[in-house]
Amino acid sequence: MSKAFRELRDALRDFAAERDWEQFHSPRNLATALAVEAAELLEPFQWLTDEQSRSLPPGTRAAVEEELADVLLYLIRLADSLDVDLEAAARAKILRNAEKYPVDKARGSSLKYDQL
Amino acid sequence: MSKAFRELRDALRDFAAERDWEQFHSPRNLATALAVEAAELLEPFQWLTDEQSRSLPPGTRAAVEEELADVLLYLIRLADSLDVDLEAAARAKILRNAEKYPVDKARGSSLKYDQL
Amino acid sequence: MSKAFRELRDALRDFAAERDWEQFHSPRNLATALAVEAAELLEPFQWLTDEQSRSLPPGTRAAVEEELADVLLYLIRLADSLDVDLEAAARAKILRNAEKYPVDKARGSSLKYDQL
Amino acid sequence: MSKAFRELRDALRDFAAERDWEQFHSPRNLATALAVEAAELLEPFQWLTDEQSRSLPPGTRAAVEEELADVLLYLIRLADSLDVDLEAAARAKILRNAEKYPVDKARGSSLKYDQL
Repeated sequence: MSKAFRELRDALRDFAAERDWEQFHSPRNLATALAVEAAELLEPFQWLTDEQSRSLPPGTRAAVEEELADVLLYLIRLADSLDVDLEAAARAKILRNAEKYPVDKARGSSLKYDQL
Repeated sequence: MSKAFRELRDALRDFAAERDWEQFHSPRNLATALAVEAAELLEPFQWLTDEQSRSLPPGTRAAVEEELADVLLYLIRLADSLDVDLEAAARAKILRNAEKYPVDKARGSSLKYDQL
Repeated sequence: MSKAFRELRDALRDFAAERDWEQFHSPRNLATALAVEAAELLEPFQWLTDEQSRSLPPGTRAAVEEELADVLLYLIRLADSLDVDLEAAARAKILRNAEKYPVDKARGSSLKYDQL
Repeated sequence: MSKAFRELRDALRDFAAERDWEQFHSPRNLATALAVEAAELLEPFQWLTDEQSRSLPPGTRAAVEEELADVLLYLIRLADSLDVDLEAAARAKILRNAEKYPVDKARGSSLKYDQL
């Protein structure tokens, strides 16, 4: 795990320990909180066109930035609660995706790999 | 941005560019895909007790690891599509959370900051 | 509560009782299952344009129909677990929405009521 | 379709038509809004135990009641936008579930049908 991910993980560990929050941080609860945050991140986009979503008004952008952070923090914390190396899992998934979506078959298509 | 986050971001940029997928990767679409993945990550936990969620069977654990990766990949890609430094946003949010949840008020409580 | 809603509620009560599933059907678990199903319902739409979403291929349409049903079943079951009259709540909400979104202010706008 | 569902569907049709909102109500947008509402409904439950979720404080209960209504309204509207008879789909799904979860195999188990 790189220093960047380790530092964020450790900061969240300390944050929870200082507040005696480990009791609430079961994988189940963290997965729930993560899904709630992901939906809050989706909320400002729900009535926008693709085009509008590319140029958010400043207030919306700041709120979205905070929601992005919330999702990452719960994600790191959830991975930690399951003893998963999130960064390594992400690198492995990129390789797997490259196999599932070969350039020549996937180019220009939004279909799922099993429908290509 | 640290090397770790930059490398993941760049790998995803290349992945999308090679497949001509930028056309699908509007912030709106990516936020939708992220919420879908977060719910897929929640799915295996939905009928588990907190205790059970702490010791997943190996097959479930492997699936969860892949879903954790999926969420991170879409999150990095979404932040990139909005030109947000995800890592910096996460660090800033930890500081903000420390103000919203002072140790002496938040200790042992799962209440929201505005109800503490 | 009308006969239609009562019948569905009662069918789900019987279904759970016969399988001894009340133990799993806490409001918390049902709310989680509902959110998971709502995301499964969103999944087939995630890369579609608005236009494409209006004319789904037959296979997708059948899958979507089943997901719509899943969401309704969990919703009715969740309301029942909380002793809420779902139908009455929906009728009351339409009236409230009519106040929040007066025709002359809301016409043609996708803004939230507090931004109109 | 029973009178109860037809009346709710028609009230929502009129609501949208009066506000010229059909332009926003693509199946894709409605499915997104539904997922966002389902997550808002999950939000108050996220740190509760199963036990606590069975007896919500009055303020939370009122908020949950409104979220339940929001989910139903978007669900009815989404089904209508796809020309699906939601009530018939729900009745059909109960029958299908009875086949997937025979009483003798499913009793007392929270496993998915393909793992029973």
